[in-house]
Amino acid sequence: MNNKTIILTGDRPTGPLHLGHFVGSLRQRVALQRDYQQFVLVADLQGLTDNGSNPQKIRNNIPEVLADYLAAGIDPSLTTICLQSALPALAELTALYMNIVTVARVERNPTVKNEIMQKGFARSLPVGFLVYPISQAADITAFKANVVPVGDDQLPMLEQTNEIVHKMNNLLPTPVLQHCKAMLSETSRLPGIDGNAKMSKSLGNTLLLSASEEAIHRAVSAMYTDPHHLKVTDPGQIDGNIVFTYLDAFHPNKAKVAEMKANYQQGGLGDKTCKNELEVCLQELIAPMRERRATYIQDKGMLMALLQKGSERAHDVTQKTVREVKCGLGLPVF
Amino acid sequence: MNNKTIILTGDRPTGPLHLGHFVGSLRQRVALQRDYQQFVLVADLQGLTDNGSNPQKIRNNIPEVLADYLAAGIDPSLTTICLQSALPALAELTALYMNIVTVARVERNPTVKNEIMQKGFARSLPVGFLVYPISQAADITAFKANVVPVGDDQLPMLEQTNEIVHKMNNLLPTPVLQHCKAMLSETSRLPGIDGNAKMSKSLGNTLLLSASEEAIHRAVSAMYTDPHHLKVTDPGQIDGNIVFTYLDAFHPNKAKVAEMKANYQQGGLGDKTCKNELEVCLQELIAPMRERRATYIQDKGMLMALLQKGSERAHDVTQKTVREVKCGLGLPVF
Repeated sequence: MNNKTIILTGDRPTGPLHLGHFVGSLRQRVALQRDYQQFVLVADLQGLTDNGSNPQKIRNNIPEVLADYLAAGIDPSLTTICLQSALPALAELTALYMNIVTVARVERNPTVKNEIMQKGFARSLPVGFLVYPISQAADITAFKANVVPVGDDQLPMLEQTNEIVHKMNNLLPTPVLQHCKAMLSETSRLPGIDGNAKMSKSLGNTLLLSASEEAIHRAVSAMYTDPHHLKVTDPGQIDGNIVFTYLDAFHPNKAKVAEMKANYQQGGLGDKTCKNELEVCLQELIAPMRERRATYIQDKGMLMALLQKGSERAHDVTQKTVREVKCGLGLPVF
Repeated sequence: MNNKTIILTGDRPTGPLHLGHFVGSLRQRVALQRDYQQFVLVADLQGLTDNGSNPQKIRNNIPEVLADYLAAGIDPSLTTICLQSALPALAELTALYMNIVTVARVERNPTVKNEIMQKGFARSLPVGFLVYPISQAADITAFKANVVPVGDDQLPMLEQTNEIVHKMNNLLPTPVLQHCKAMLSETSRLPGIDGNAKMSKSLGNTLLLSASEEAIHRAVSAMYTDPHHLKVTDPGQIDGNIVFTYLDAFHPNKAKVAEMKANYQQGGLGDKTCKNELEVCLQELIAPMRERRATYIQDKGMLMALLQKGSERAHDVTQKTVREVKCGLGLPVF
């Protein structure tokens, strides 16, 4: 196991996971967990950076996210699932890295800049939010992850991480930290069912992994298509047609989807038929996850025990890294 | 021991300690250690906030500071001497507090503002330096210190700490953190031997606890007095006359000093006589410290062992606090 490339991914426990997570990361994690040494971090501390005064939101969503992981097929015997706040090494590395990164540098990080704008922080920006690229560098490097699956909006974060790796290694007699590279997912980001580029709970345009049969039906029925495709015989538009975006992302038969697209563009294929095809496919995808999830979420004791076990293993790994960094810096390690 | 009021103090290990530290804090710590539960923090992480690229400076000065402590009379059986970087709870609490403090608030902290200006950081300000009021709040609250001996320039730091205490306690079902108050030292700040308000190694105007007999003689001879007091018979000025400032700070016989002041102001008391009086007193003060210190600094193994023992005790205390905070926030604690 030890020669495998190390992957770190994770989620902020701010709500149950949805199809966007499934496409963007969960599916990939399930596929990777045999061939890589994979750590999945439940990033409760990062969740608190913009929920500092609402910790119960974070707390309540930890088991939700764990149930989603298991339902999606993440196997705790292959993947180490661990809790950020249970790993003091991450906070310790953050404290050390903060001294070799300037305020000007984090303020210049495009990902942080965008998110600060999106969240409308202005003068109320919490320090933790400004510091989070450093804290993320601590997460990645603590696990010595070489590969980090991210969306392309997160590339500046990895650039900043590698800058820190370079700077810190230069302070040490022998390099301790690993440079990391991005693994971009195929479907970069699944749009919301309303056609909005971002699927998010606050926009009410998500489809949860726990969605009921009825919720899936409603979501697909309401799904944004081509507003100019009025009659079945009209030629239809594929670009921006969410039904086809979802068929691309989820339908197992790519040839069938290609054929449907051709018919739709020519004219002669109705939205209803396409939506039926998509709904069958989503019902088949979600039903077993929903059922497994319903069982798992009943047993919070089991979920927390598995998180504890994973965190203990992750503690050993991350503790080793922080000790190596401290020793390299010449700080006493007892 | 447990009912005693808790005091936290500490020093950044950026150089051996000098008479300024002795007057401003060491002497007080020795006097307090029987009646209070006293923790002294060797703040290596805080030392790194503006020495991030020069960790060997911090590392090399840890034993120097420990030897100074023992030489000054701090007794490890009465005072817990511990190392900041050996206490992960401090970094963990910092990470939690960062989410409830805004960037605007730390930028507004007068102590930080001044120090940023003094150190000429401008755009190269390290994140760790901006965050240090939060990290200091983590230090104080982790020990549940009620009393913090500081100079009056540090009062805004305690104000910020108490704000964090208030905010965090409000998020918890029952308050965990203690409000703290300042204990201002009698002699607020000892000027340098050249009359500069600040005694500091970089200004070359200090007198170390390890100063040789010859160094003490030279320092007193060079000491700034009243530049208009040319002849013994001239009336002399006491205000700003460093020899009298030092006599006030160090001479055991206050009545004698008062008499000397009167004579000096009247005219008839020469600088040489005053300096002789001061030198005798400083030689008597420093000689035993210098000798003890010379023995201690030979035995770095003993110094580090005592730091380890103190850090282990401090680890238990601070770990308990971070667990209480996490439990209160509802975060899983394994």
